[in-house]
Amino acid sequence: MGLIVQKFGGTSVANKERLENVARIITDTYRQGHQVVAVLSAQGKTTDELIAKAMDINPKASKREMDMLLSTGEQISCSLCAMAIQAMGYPAVSLTGWQAGFQTNSSYSNAKIKKVRTERIQAELDRNHSIVIVTGFQGLNKFDDNTTLGRGGSDTSAVALAAALKADLCQIYTDVDGIYTADPRYVEGARKLEEITFDEMLELASLGAQVLHNRSVEMAKKYRVNLEVLSSFSGKPGTKVKEVAKQMEKTQISGVAKDKNVARLALVGVEDKPGIAYQVFSLLGKENINVDIILQSYGRDERQDISFTVKRSDADQALAILSEHQATLGFDHIDVNKEVVKVSIVGAGMLENAGVAAKMFGALYDADINIHMISTSEIKVSVLLDEINGNAAVQAIHDKFFED
Amino acid sequence: MGLIVQKFGGTSVANKERLENVARIITDTYRQGHQVVAVLSAQGKTTDELIAKAMDINPKASKREMDMLLSTGEQISCSLCAMAIQAMGYPAVSLTGWQAGFQTNSSYSNAKIKKVRTERIQAELDRNHSIVIVTGFQGLNKFDDNTTLGRGGSDTSAVALAAALKADLCQIYTDVDGIYTADPRYVEGARKLEEITFDEMLELASLGAQVLHNRSVEMAKKYRVNLEVLSSFSGKPGTKVKEVAKQMEKTQISGVAKDKNVARLALVGVEDKPGIAYQVFSLLGKENINVDIILQSYGRDERQDISFTVKRSDADQALAILSEHQATLGFDHIDVNKEVVKVSIVGAGMLENAGVAAKMFGALYDADINIHMISTSEIKVSVLLDEINGNAAVQAIHDKFFED
Repeated sequence: MGLIVQKFGGTSVANKERLENVARIITDTYRQGHQVVAVLSAQGKTTDELIAKAMDINPKASKREMDMLLSTGEQISCSLCAMAIQAMGYPAVSLTGWQAGFQTNSSYSNAKIKKVRTERIQAELDRNHSIVIVTGFQGLNKFDDNTTLGRGGSDTSAVALAAALKADLCQIYTDVDGIYTADPRYVEGARKLEEITFDEMLELASLGAQVLHNRSVEMAKKYRVNLEVLSSFSGKPGTKVKEVAKQMEKTQISGVAKDKNVARLALVGVEDKPGIAYQVFSLLGKENINVDIILQSYGRDERQDISFTVKRSDADQALAILSEHQATLGFDHIDVNKEVVKVSIVGAGMLENAGVAAKMFGALYDADINIHMISTSEIKVSVLLDEINGNAAVQAIHDKFFED
Repeated sequence: MGLIVQKFGGTSVANKERLENVARIITDTYRQGHQVVAVLSAQGKTTDELIAKAMDINPKASKREMDMLLSTGEQISCSLCAMAIQAMGYPAVSLTGWQAGFQTNSSYSNAKIKKVRTERIQAELDRNHSIVIVTGFQGLNKFDDNTTLGRGGSDTSAVALAAALKADLCQIYTDVDGIYTADPRYVEGARKLEEITFDEMLELASLGAQVLHNRSVEMAKKYRVNLEVLSSFSGKPGTKVKEVAKQMEKTQISGVAKDKNVARLALVGVEDKPGIAYQVFSLLGKENINVDIILQSYGRDERQDISFTVKRSDADQALAILSEHQATLGFDHIDVNKEVVKVSIVGAGMLENAGVAAKMFGALYDADINIHMISTSEIKVSVLLDEINGNAAVQAIHDKFFED
């Protein structure tokens, strides 16, 4: 007997049959004696279709009006889900973001949750013994205007609600049945993790294992919300995300991730004087281009090279910005390589196990794969490789760590 | 320079091109120096499609959830319209029913407006000089839940808003370009009225000339809101609906209307004792069946006949109810005739012109059309005819009154 927040993504509520499936999951939980608050995304491609409609009318529509438009998507899926639950004979009430008490700042289309006032939800749970269905992805700002949290915001809505309600568990239902040691679509022998830490999850999410939205994991970590990632289709237990996770026996890492959205830029022949790196990265930062791995060569003949990676989608813009400032920065030329991939291992176990990085490099050496750049953190090692070697690299590393 | 409320129905906002047309009408008015508040219905068949989606999931969905679902329709059309206006370079902001201050009672799916708190709209108009686009058909009840006003409610929203804002004019844009002396699709020589009184409009609306929703006309009459009915497509002046209208020269009536949604029931051989009529009509009233024209024959052999009309869609239910009580009511049998039609003339001019009814009957006599029942009020005469004679009757009466 507890309070459980369940979040269902767009694929899970895409049509009548799937909504009924979601209604079954919710009512099964309710029947076990739990209070249930479900947070839903818009159905399937609804949000994309609404965006297309808006772009057709006004490609520069104000973000306020976009949020007004987009927030209808979850209102539709939530009321339909409440109806499906009622059809099964259980009490249900759907609430919009503002009815559910989501107060946000005023950044239309990318709002941050400031507070969740839970009085209404609590009353529906306690007084009406109702199942509560809440629109994800949206809230209300101080002007009483609808705001949306940006893509993936429904995960954040669910975690924020779980935190505010002091829920016992926040289950994120999605179309995969948990977090795997590697992408099971490409890697043989990939297995589902029973548990993983918040920090590992954060590294994996930012490394391209797009199961949970990073904002939601950060928030869960901050407010110590117990998360579980599981499939709305399989009915199997998923992966628990916690402050401290049970270590799986004998494994030093939790997973291997691959990120293709990466490109390498190299400023060749930069003058070896102080402040150049600072100038380069502040120019890019001003345009919101994040730099990931950085490698600065030792100076030679008073010249050095600076290489770094950015998102592949930012590469052309980064090139343009730096070329514009060639004179000031004083480099010889820029190399851009978009045919690279970042492969990473993540694991809290690294902290206690020396030689994890070496083991990874060994796996790549055995597979005859060349490493361009290396970056490490406390619980992560990333390497930049030619894109063509990506899958083979993940498989080789995974075999090395997980094959007994 | 004034404040104008403009209402656009579902057909007027059905697609991108029509929304842009509506945006042009709104911005033309704004450019003339007026403050403009536009009230919009949902696009085309949106509401019907949402209802079908709900029925598919739960044919007995709670009305609260239906209202939650349906209120998204206007939110979509309004935000898209605001975007279209922004694309033309004018400031626009869309507001939901609750943001616009519509407070209703709690009758989900058929709510009544209790009050419109106009502070937000007034601020958008005065401080931001913005065009304000408001969702019709919806409001918020005391539980902070969305409610809808029922079909045709957008007209009522517009008139209520015009009353609350003390607007100079409330323009109802629709797909016809005004109120005609008869339905121009069927009647030769039908002409558009320049002006008409609220009372005439009420009689015409209830008689089947479905241009304006009756609730909205009643409210306009009560709060003395100047109405104008006009087409969003033609660009021509429409018909003004006012407390006192200029009488068109030489015409004694404003229009001829035909209503096919009618059936006649006759209780034959009813015992001639007191209270029978009361019993009959209270039985029907309990089931929300409205009786229109009533004709009670003089008693003969201690038996009499009671005939009356109901909506054709209510006829079978009325028959069933009365048959069930045959013993108590003590009648011989019931005749039901669904092949009838009600034709009416309406005009404030009748009050001052004797012989208007006689002129109507004369027109029917000349056309060799038999009258089954007659009903009169101060500004209306209705006759019940065989349905097959309906169009000929309207044409004959219209010719008599309007042909010079």
